[in-house]
Amino acid sequence: MQTPKKIAVVGSGLVGTLLAIYLKKLGHTVHVYDRSPDIRKINFSGRSINLVLSDRGIKALKDVGLEDEVLGIGIPVEKRAIHTGVGTVNEQFYGKDGEVIYSLSRGLLNKKMVDLAEQAGVEFFFEQKVWDVDLTTATISIGETERGEWTTKDYDLTFGADGAFSRIRHRMQRQSMFNYSQEFLNIGYKELNIPANPDGTHKLNKNALHIWPRGNFMLMALANPNGSFTCTLFMPHDGENSFEDLKTTEQLVTFFAKHFPDTKEVIPNLVEDFFKNPTSYLVTMKCFPWTYSNKVALIGDACHAIVPFYGHGMNAGFEDITVLNQMIEQYGDDWANLLNDYENSRKPNTDAIAELSYRNFMEMSSKTADEKFLLQKKIEKWFSDKHPDKWMPLYSRVTFSLQPYSEALAIGDFQNKIMEKVLKIQDIEEKWNSEEVENLILENLKSAI
Amino acid sequence: MQTPKKIAVVGSGLVGTLLAIYLKKLGHTVHVYDRSPDIRKINFSGRSINLVLSDRGIKALKDVGLEDEVLGIGIPVEKRAIHTGVGTVNEQFYGKDGEVIYSLSRGLLNKKMVDLAEQAGVEFFFEQKVWDVDLTTATISIGETERGEWTTKDYDLTFGADGAFSRIRHRMQRQSMFNYSQEFLNIGYKELNIPANPDGTHKLNKNALHIWPRGNFMLMALANPNGSFTCTLFMPHDGENSFEDLKTTEQLVTFFAKHFPDTKEVIPNLVEDFFKNPTSYLVTMKCFPWTYSNKVALIGDACHAIVPFYGHGMNAGFEDITVLNQMIEQYGDDWANLLNDYENSRKPNTDAIAELSYRNFMEMSSKTADEKFLLQKKIEKWFSDKHPDKWMPLYSRVTFSLQPYSEALAIGDFQNKIMEKVLKIQDIEEKWNSEEVENLILENLKSAI
Repeated sequence: MQTPKKIAVVGSGLVGTLLAIYLKKLGHTVHVYDRSPDIRKINFSGRSINLVLSDRGIKALKDVGLEDEVLGIGIPVEKRAIHTGVGTVNEQFYGKDGEVIYSLSRGLLNKKMVDLAEQAGVEFFFEQKVWDVDLTTATISIGETERGEWTTKDYDLTFGADGAFSRIRHRMQRQSMFNYSQEFLNIGYKELNIPANPDGTHKLNKNALHIWPRGNFMLMALANPNGSFTCTLFMPHDGENSFEDLKTTEQLVTFFAKHFPDTKEVIPNLVEDFFKNPTSYLVTMKCFPWTYSNKVALIGDACHAIVPFYGHGMNAGFEDITVLNQMIEQYGDDWANLLNDYENSRKPNTDAIAELSYRNFMEMSSKTADEKFLLQKKIEKWFSDKHPDKWMPLYSRVTFSLQPYSEALAIGDFQNKIMEKVLKIQDIEEKWNSEEVENLILENLKSAI
Repeated sequence: MQTPKKIAVVGSGLVGTLLAIYLKKLGHTVHVYDRSPDIRKINFSGRSINLVLSDRGIKALKDVGLEDEVLGIGIPVEKRAIHTGVGTVNEQFYGKDGEVIYSLSRGLLNKKMVDLAEQAGVEFFFEQKVWDVDLTTATISIGETERGEWTTKDYDLTFGADGAFSRIRHRMQRQSMFNYSQEFLNIGYKELNIPANPDGTHKLNKNALHIWPRGNFMLMALANPNGSFTCTLFMPHDGENSFEDLKTTEQLVTFFAKHFPDTKEVIPNLVEDFFKNPTSYLVTMKCFPWTYSNKVALIGDACHAIVPFYGHGMNAGFEDITVLNQMIEQYGDDWANLLNDYENSRKPNTDAIAELSYRNFMEMSSKTADEKFLLQKKIEKWFSDKHPDKWMPLYSRVTFSLQPYSEALAIGDFQNKIMEKVLKIQDIEEKWNSEEVENLILENLKSAI
């Protein structure tokens, strides 16, 4: 057990609230600060992508007894439904029978998490802007504006769970030997909506993640419990097929009629939502170190913001908490070494999921409509079913296992090299499930040992 | 000719002062701000590496008529003098006969540049801390402290020449779509000193850059006009052979006696200087964009800080000014397009010199003492002398030519691939200048066309 401390968590998002619950259950006094109002009291919509929860996130919830509470507001998603350009829908199952991910509305989930944290005894301070932290004392500074008057609050330890534009990290960034990068993708996104049918049912299969892959842009949709879908249009900010090209109602309607004709019936408020909702940015942010002595630590997006194309932002953040909790069990009160081990253990893995997420835009927007790619997936599934001990597809490693992301990435790259050879076999389309293919894969797998 | 504007230059370093001179000569009103006191009135020493000036920097000075003024305080350096571990000194000429770089004391040069700028009519405001800039108006905010009272000054255009930790860039960094990275090397540096002989002469050959390469650390020395040398010790902050290991006088003296025995006579104040002077950090900083509309622009280290191992920090910054000036000639009063073309034209080249500089630590600290590397240099020189139209060594492209850095890097990598093949020839040590080698290189060069 740890000696009780007074701990501040900056940020009441998903990672901040779950971390607060863990810390409170360990016996600490936990105060959560957020610059925004209580999310339970506001209308949260218009600029979010639906979340997907998978094994890593579920483990972190389960270990603190919250699995059922959260899965209760999630919708199981078992496959991708690919809406092709010619009006057909192809399906790609994510994993084996019964392997699913869960679609969650960010607003709904965040409200639930704040409720659960409050029930656990965490205290919340909303509309309190934390501008600075003293790295040697963990004291935070709060005020209305960046240049106005600030008051300070003393803590034993402060966590920055304040997202990609973290102020806690901003302070750490001013140290020597602090490595940092932020890189924006030239892809923006906009939230759209597929409302429920009048009887409250979903207009599309709710147990699928719907994708309309169109090369350098795509539309996707994930179900909500109220019968609606949250849709996200991803496309370049400028250049060919870009937000820049969609300035008028006519341009927008023509564009959707051409590229997404089957959405006409299901997105009735296209024009209104498109011009009302902001176009948001996508950034990959990396930094190191994440902690300062036994006083300050970053967690979640505050130290590893990634693009959303693998659906692992929340899962990676929740896994930070799992690892932190393992370190707490291992080190007890030795917070300096505990935090040091936490950051060193997590860094290669969050770098790996950043890379995987970045690559996955191409997979979702282009490859899901590519014959060779679909054939590769088919061969991998066939071989994996035959030799489950020898081949787990990359997506399953990342999503349906707890293998460290960095290992999953390395093995995935190795598997891809083998599949490149397989796809070069003459007439592979005809003999994709032949003994020749099976032997080639087995042989190549052996060479790795 | 341009319409006269009121321009602020933040930073009175080498790039800031030279830029101010260019802008003043174009007819603009130019105010230079610096948070530090006037460098001409303080004792500047203890944390600097001597600068080397080469063709790119000289061109920028020459185009504004300052070549002679600056070369007058420089010392020509024609070669590397490699102090081996066994007491011998090997020499490596940088270029062909008459090709030299110039050693310059940063303090001396900066004082001279402020003088020259003042003579040109530039106005200086020292001890004025610029904390912020309004990107849409170019108005700067000045105050004693970051959180204290600020006053504003209006300008038509503001340049951030305020170095690697630029406040002007800090403002730009808060925009969406601003890419940024800072990466620290685990190598620190410390200034040491070789004083002049009693008669004012130099203790070592002043026309050489002296290196004591020792693998993961090295010492170097560059001459000053007053007979002294500025020495720089580069070594890891921690780990094997690191600053961390040199905490006591005994550790320091033992370390120098072991690794740099021939410096004992020439660095008399080793112990005092070592513990008095700070250990400084080395960072590579990249960002983009560099400009905002026709209002704000970054230049020099403020937008591309590099590590010092190619001796091109100042040269790259001065070349920014050459390119900016070319854009001014081309675009006249169209500042928005002028600045846009400036940043797009420079970015690939400053990325290239960042890469070259990063790689050069290994070259200086290890390879200059490596037989294979010395053989490669010898073959390159021999072939280049025979076919000057077909082969210019990378160092010469970077230092004795104005070829864009990005082209130099690409061609250098191609040449290296050829040299790898050459060095694999059996008994290459014996037949390094044979027809076989000549033909192999010629053949490989043809394959590139």
